[in-house]
Amino acid sequence: MIRLIEELYPICRSITGNGVRQTLRILQRRIPLEVHEVPSGTKVFDWTVPKEWNIREAFIKNSRGEKIVAFAESNLHVVNYSVPFKGKLSLDQLKSHLFTLPDRPRWIPYRTSYYQETWGFCLSHEQLLQMEDGEYEVLIDASLEDGHLTYGEYYLPGQTSDEVLLSCHICHPSLCNDNLSGIALMVALAKHLNSSPRRYSYRFLFIPGTIGSITWLALNESRVSSIKHGLVIAGVGDKGTFTYKKSRRAQAEIDRVFNHVVGRSGDGSRIIDFFPYGYDERQFCSPGFNLPVGCAMRTPFGQYPEYHTSADNLDFVQPQYLADSFSKCLAVLQVLEENRMYLNLNPKCEPQLGRRGLYGTIGGQVDGKLRELAMLWVLNLSDGQHTLLDIAEKSGLAFDSIKNAADALLTHDLLKEIPV
Amino acid sequence: MIRLIEELYPICRSITGNGVRQTLRILQRRIPLEVHEVPSGTKVFDWTVPKEWNIREAFIKNSRGEKIVAFAESNLHVVNYSVPFKGKLSLDQLKSHLFTLPDRPRWIPYRTSYYQETWGFCLSHEQLLQMEDGEYEVLIDASLEDGHLTYGEYYLPGQTSDEVLLSCHICHPSLCNDNLSGIALMVALAKHLNSSPRRYSYRFLFIPGTIGSITWLALNESRVSSIKHGLVIAGVGDKGTFTYKKSRRAQAEIDRVFNHVVGRSGDGSRIIDFFPYGYDERQFCSPGFNLPVGCAMRTPFGQYPEYHTSADNLDFVQPQYLADSFSKCLAVLQVLEENRMYLNLNPKCEPQLGRRGLYGTIGGQVDGKLRELAMLWVLNLSDGQHTLLDIAEKSGLAFDSIKNAADALLTHDLLKEIPV
Amino acid sequence: MIRLIEELYPICRSITGNGVRQTLRILQRRIPLEVHEVPSGTKVFDWTVPKEWNIREAFIKNSRGEKIVAFAESNLHVVNYSVPFKGKLSLDQLKSHLFTLPDRPRWIPYRTSYYQETWGFCLSHEQLLQMEDGEYEVLIDASLEDGHLTYGEYYLPGQTSDEVLLSCHICHPSLCNDNLSGIALMVALAKHLNSSPRRYSYRFLFIPGTIGSITWLALNESRVSSIKHGLVIAGVGDKGTFTYKKSRRAQAEIDRVFNHVVGRSGDGSRIIDFFPYGYDERQFCSPGFNLPVGCAMRTPFGQYPEYHTSADNLDFVQPQYLADSFSKCLAVLQVLEENRMYLNLNPKCEPQLGRRGLYGTIGGQVDGKLRELAMLWVLNLSDGQHTLLDIAEKSGLAFDSIKNAADALLTHDLLKEIPV
Repeated sequence: MIRLIEELYPICRSITGNGVRQTLRILQRRIPLEVHEVPSGTKVFDWTVPKEWNIREAFIKNSRGEKIVAFAESNLHVVNYSVPFKGKLSLDQLKSHLFTLPDRPRWIPYRTSYYQETWGFCLSHEQLLQMEDGEYEVLIDASLEDGHLTYGEYYLPGQTSDEVLLSCHICHPSLCNDNLSGIALMVALAKHLNSSPRRYSYRFLFIPGTIGSITWLALNESRVSSIKHGLVIAGVGDKGTFTYKKSRRAQAEIDRVFNHVVGRSGDGSRIIDFFPYGYDERQFCSPGFNLPVGCAMRTPFGQYPEYHTSADNLDFVQPQYLADSFSKCLAVLQVLEENRMYLNLNPKCEPQLGRRGLYGTIGGQVDGKLRELAMLWVLNLSDGQHTLLDIAEKSGLAFDSIKNAADALLTHDLLKEIPV
Repeated sequence: MIRLIEELYPICRSITGNGVRQTLRILQRRIPLEVHEVPSGTKVFDWTVPKEWNIREAFIKNSRGEKIVAFAESNLHVVNYSVPFKGKLSLDQLKSHLFTLPDRPRWIPYRTSYYQETWGFCLSHEQLLQMEDGEYEVLIDASLEDGHLTYGEYYLPGQTSDEVLLSCHICHPSLCNDNLSGIALMVALAKHLNSSPRRYSYRFLFIPGTIGSITWLALNESRVSSIKHGLVIAGVGDKGTFTYKKSRRAQAEIDRVFNHVVGRSGDGSRIIDFFPYGYDERQFCSPGFNLPVGCAMRTPFGQYPEYHTSADNLDFVQPQYLADSFSKCLAVLQVLEENRMYLNLNPKCEPQLGRRGLYGTIGGQVDGKLRELAMLWVLNLSDGQHTLLDIAEKSGLAFDSIKNAADALLTHDLLKEIPV
Repeated sequence: MIRLIEELYPICRSITGNGVRQTLRILQRRIPLEVHEVPSGTKVFDWTVPKEWNIREAFIKNSRGEKIVAFAESNLHVVNYSVPFKGKLSLDQLKSHLFTLPDRPRWIPYRTSYYQETWGFCLSHEQLLQMEDGEYEVLIDASLEDGHLTYGEYYLPGQTSDEVLLSCHICHPSLCNDNLSGIALMVALAKHLNSSPRRYSYRFLFIPGTIGSITWLALNESRVSSIKHGLVIAGVGDKGTFTYKKSRRAQAEIDRVFNHVVGRSGDGSRIIDFFPYGYDERQFCSPGFNLPVGCAMRTPFGQYPEYHTSADNLDFVQPQYLADSFSKCLAVLQVLEENRMYLNLNPKCEPQLGRRGLYGTIGGQVDGKLRELAMLWVLNLSDGQHTLLDIAEKSGLAFDSIKNAADALLTHDLLKEIPV
């Protein structure tokens, strides 16, 4: 994951343009994702696919001709989606186009202006303070023209056509946690799932934020009914504890599974309620769709000072945090894969487990036998009303213990699977 | 409010009689309330309107002819509804008719005997201790005769015939918090609402406790179905924190609105559960009516030592506490007026707020924009299942923020109102 | 109860055999229970009634011919259901048949091997450490042959055929808390209930654990629908606080009554959730029956070191703890007997309690009158939706106060009973 992040870091991405295409080509070397191009002007619900933005060069030169701010040094220096501009301005005129973070004088902020045609530069506050009165030469050699919105999609078929949707945004330039971390984690999940047996089909979306999910939903409305579970992945590499934001449904199966997995982690991981702000779960969970899509993150967006600044760099994302996020997401997907409903075929009194070798033979011993307890829970609650997840929740035992108990009982024909 | 309380304080009120009439005449100078007279003997459910009680004079004279207890000094001195009496008694004979508060030796208690024909005097315990053996002359120049039960009613029509019922008891003599404070607050609300546009119609009842609400309900049973929300107001001028007692329904809209308003006040105000004791909410919330009527108070009745004593006087009620009670009740009525259900007309994905000038144009900024967040909540939950109050509760935002957001969205045709 | 425990203590009980018969004969001197004999080999759901086990003598002799372990000294010395054995073994060979408690070197453990034919001895760890190398002579003079499973049943008819099931296990040898305490408490309850008027019929089962309840359920399946409440009683004489384990239904009436009674005891008594391990509630609460059967205990099984050892002896069970368990169980049964639903015949406003002598006549007094408050609660909630238990729960008052209030109101024709 770290290597992929390092490779993607220098690229200037935006919601459209060649930076996205270059990013998706790099991902295609790892997973066979399909690249879609949607023309500018396409109507997608209340929105319109915007013009495509590309940038070649941008700088501010002082009166001595020195480049004091240069796109080549950091793609954060240019307000993303700035219109082309070339001209000379006094410092006063220029200042209304400059953005800094006075509280963090060495960091460059990240700003965008997707839907209002303007231009601007972001720079450190220290740089701003050093700018003297005088005339400045400004160049933004960019284009904003009819073109395409580009996104990547990878569909991994499983035993059923029921889908798990995984989505991350790919529209941020040189920012690591937000969201190269999400891109890298999703690629790692895709590779892992590709090599495992799967009940569900998986759809991985690598899309620009907001307009990307709106576009995908508008063009794929008929497929939405197949989505049984979904997850937006963003900001999963920082040192904060893992955070899961519930879907709008609040009690969707994926919400309950994250609650089970995260609740048992004992590492301070948190579950937070849905709110209609954040990443693309805003669109997936809009009332007209109301999909069971939550969001996996570590420190929530906007709650760490490095957020949307040049300090969200290669040092900010660390392998151990990415690995923890990966293992939690994978554990959740495994529970979703394995969650079933069974019916106890001997519902009147317990079946005689000892006769089947499923129970200790010398009775009266005090030691709580977890395996036996798990079997008794499965038998007691497999009444046609409880899934294995329900049983894990009610018993307080780990899903894996319950699943193993059910497997042992199935082997002895004490259960049969029934549809949920 | 304080001026009205001062004007009403000296009057000897009871559940019937001229004190009530005099009180209502004073109120009529402020609001055009209608005075109703219900004859003694009228059957009202399980009860009968009692004889009318009026009192002119009452005293106890000692053997030296000195008036040691005189109704003229405080109308609390006579047990309310005492039957006429004239006679001479020894101290021992007299004592069974005397009531004091040994723990509060300077205060005169307030006692009533509405439904058992007897007589008595209330006095300070210090007075009692000074009474020497000997013969006492006692006069209670009162009448208890067929007459009327008198109450006041003010109906303020609104856009709809759905009603908000506001009720206070007017049967207590010289006691300020209980309930001249409630009378004054209700008059102030009536004047304020009269000068504002109103969706609801408002009905203000100024009635004697218990028998008054029973009488009104018995005579107005057919009107009860119009009552959508109701509030009994009593004891709202003391220095204790504001208290709202929920209706028997517990989750009536008025209960939820008080919870929202009081819960956000941050001043220690409390919500307590319904219990079948207290003021006229006992009758409005009897199981045969089960109206959505709560009770607004400050320190609950019986929980302050001044309750039902001469210490509940003009010093005990203070303007700032009355004003706080007024503003909380008014805030609740305003939420009730403004609570609506809307339908998001763009339920699939978010509408593009930026295009409509409803959203910041330079994206990527960290500062949480409350106004935008409120709009996103309204859009996300305006699915035909949630009122603005529901959205305020779920979002944790103030009702006003949600209401303002809905207004902005309405202006841009993004919502339409639907019936609740 | 203590005398009965002392009388039963020396007997070597098991899940079948003469120890059980002898035990039931002793109980028959106190209550007229019926003894049932079910033949070995009878199919009972997934199980089969086992062969009958009886034991006459058992010992281990050392090479000097000294009996170092003797059944005659403690019936715990022989693994319960050991098959007959006679032979000479080296210490090494013998050791795999010996069970001790190294952590409690002076106590003899209790072990069983009902469903696997083997043999063994239990002894103190101190005894084991003293055993020297050499040859040992072992005798287990037992029989394991076709016979019967024996249990006792006492049916006490009441006004209705609706039943309360009370059940305890009788299969443990010289262990006092587990479960001579339960046997003694159930006999005491039976004697008490026999001498009281009863709405419910009561069925007392004195059965071997697990196989006994399975056998009874299999043979009495058609009767099960009469069981409205049930309680397994086990381990009720130790010094731990009282514990009630809820039925699988969690909100059965008996669960709610225990919650009310135990919750008001103020002595640290606890309510715990159902789990499918423990005593015969495992069978009664299997999903095919799901009966409203909870379990009364003190310290839960396995949570005290004396559990299933020779230290669970006559000193471990104390009269005051037995008495406390008895009074809590009886209090619960009394609430079940007395819980009714009434309808307020004056649902519109309060009835005039004062006129009926049910209310203080001098009004205005501060002292909360519990009796009146209880009447007001009963009137307010007797709307066809609330039983007396519901009213007790909602009001926070004791069931007895609510019951007494209802009785007073019934006397004045203010309520009528309606079916729940």
